[in-house]
Amino acid sequence: MTERLDKQIAFLNEADKLKTVLRGTTLCDASRAENSAEHSWHLTLYALVLADQAGPEVDINRVIKMLILHDLVEIDAGDNPIFGDYDAAEMEAQEQIAANRIFGLLPDDLRDDLRSIWEEFEAAESPTARFAKSLDRFQPPMQNLASGGGSWTDYNVSEAQIEEKVGRKIAIGAPALWSYARARISSFFAGVGA
Amino acid sequence: MTERLDKQIAFLNEADKLKTVLRGTTLCDASRAENSAEHSWHLTLYALVLADQAGPEVDINRVIKMLILHDLVEIDAGDNPIFGDYDAAEMEAQEQIAANRIFGLLPDDLRDDLRSIWEEFEAAESPTARFAKSLDRFQPPMQNLASGGGSWTDYNVSEAQIEEKVGRKIAIGAPALWSYARARISSFFAGVGA
Repeated sequence: MTERLDKQIAFLNEADKLKTVLRGTTLCDASRAENSAEHSWHLTLYALVLADQAGPEVDINRVIKMLILHDLVEIDAGDNPIFGDYDAAEMEAQEQIAANRIFGLLPDDLRDDLRSIWEEFEAAESPTARFAKSLDRFQPPMQNLASGGGSWTDYNVSEAQIEEKVGRKIAIGAPALWSYARARISSFFAGVGA
Repeated sequence: MTERLDKQIAFLNEADKLKTVLRGTTLCDASRAENSAEHSWHLTLYALVLADQAGPEVDINRVIKMLILHDLVEIDAGDNPIFGDYDAAEMEAQEQIAANRIFGLLPDDLRDDLRSIWEEFEAAESPTARFAKSLDRFQPPMQNLASGGGSWTDYNVSEAQIEEKVGRKIAIGAPALWSYARARISSFFAGVGA
């Protein structure tokens, strides 16, 4: 019993490090970079509030679990900003090594349970994972619109690049959210160019 | 449709402010104060990892929803450290006013759904709410043990005060977690006094 709890607490203490992983996006008030732990919390709230955008095959409780876990590997592998320059295959390899170490801190049954939730999210094939992925892509544009540009300005991103790198992925799992975001992004870029 | 989404996004953007509310506890490495958004994320992970400590009447998915929402009122009412000096009735009144404003940003159906989850947590009467409350009290001691004292040192807290203000509340919803924490807290204070 104590040995099991020791492993559970060791994992939870290790997870604390996600609070120090900084992302490309800022808070809505642009005061500082967002970290991956508070981003993960915000996404779980997105899931609660936007559950009406999920299709009938989506298990919203599992969406929330995916979003709690989805960035833990960044403790070792770091965050790769959407518009940054990175090798996707290399990133995936690093994240698998990170998942081995981090989920490996848990008792075997929990390690397998939580790893399988994370793997389903990463595969982005089930309706549940696709909806979770859509929320993960939808939140940064909402932050950037609120902060007046954020990572779009920092990475000198065009409206077409947002459509390509973000829009198509939002649309797979949550088409109405992409319609909503696209209209606001177009207005934003029209204003910047004016 | 757009009007509904406007309200949902207004709420989600307002919720972003929870990332700027600082708590009495620090990160495990003592590098800085923890904020209430990343604390809320950490608690949802506690719920996933420590679900085996919940009694048979506990709905773990609802525990997670409570923990996502539980601190939102702090955007207006602020965080009251457990060992700080505050008026509980005054705090509760402020939190009700905050809940009216913040949940009131949502469409009516969502406002009522999420408010009722938060009210159930606050009442701490259902087995589900009691387990969620126990996790909320269990995480800070784990952070303090990891950081070498944290808010216990800052507030000059004794082992007896922890038992009174924290231990009894953990024990209501998760007795084995309190046994585990108490043993480690005693060892910590024995070391500090030596």
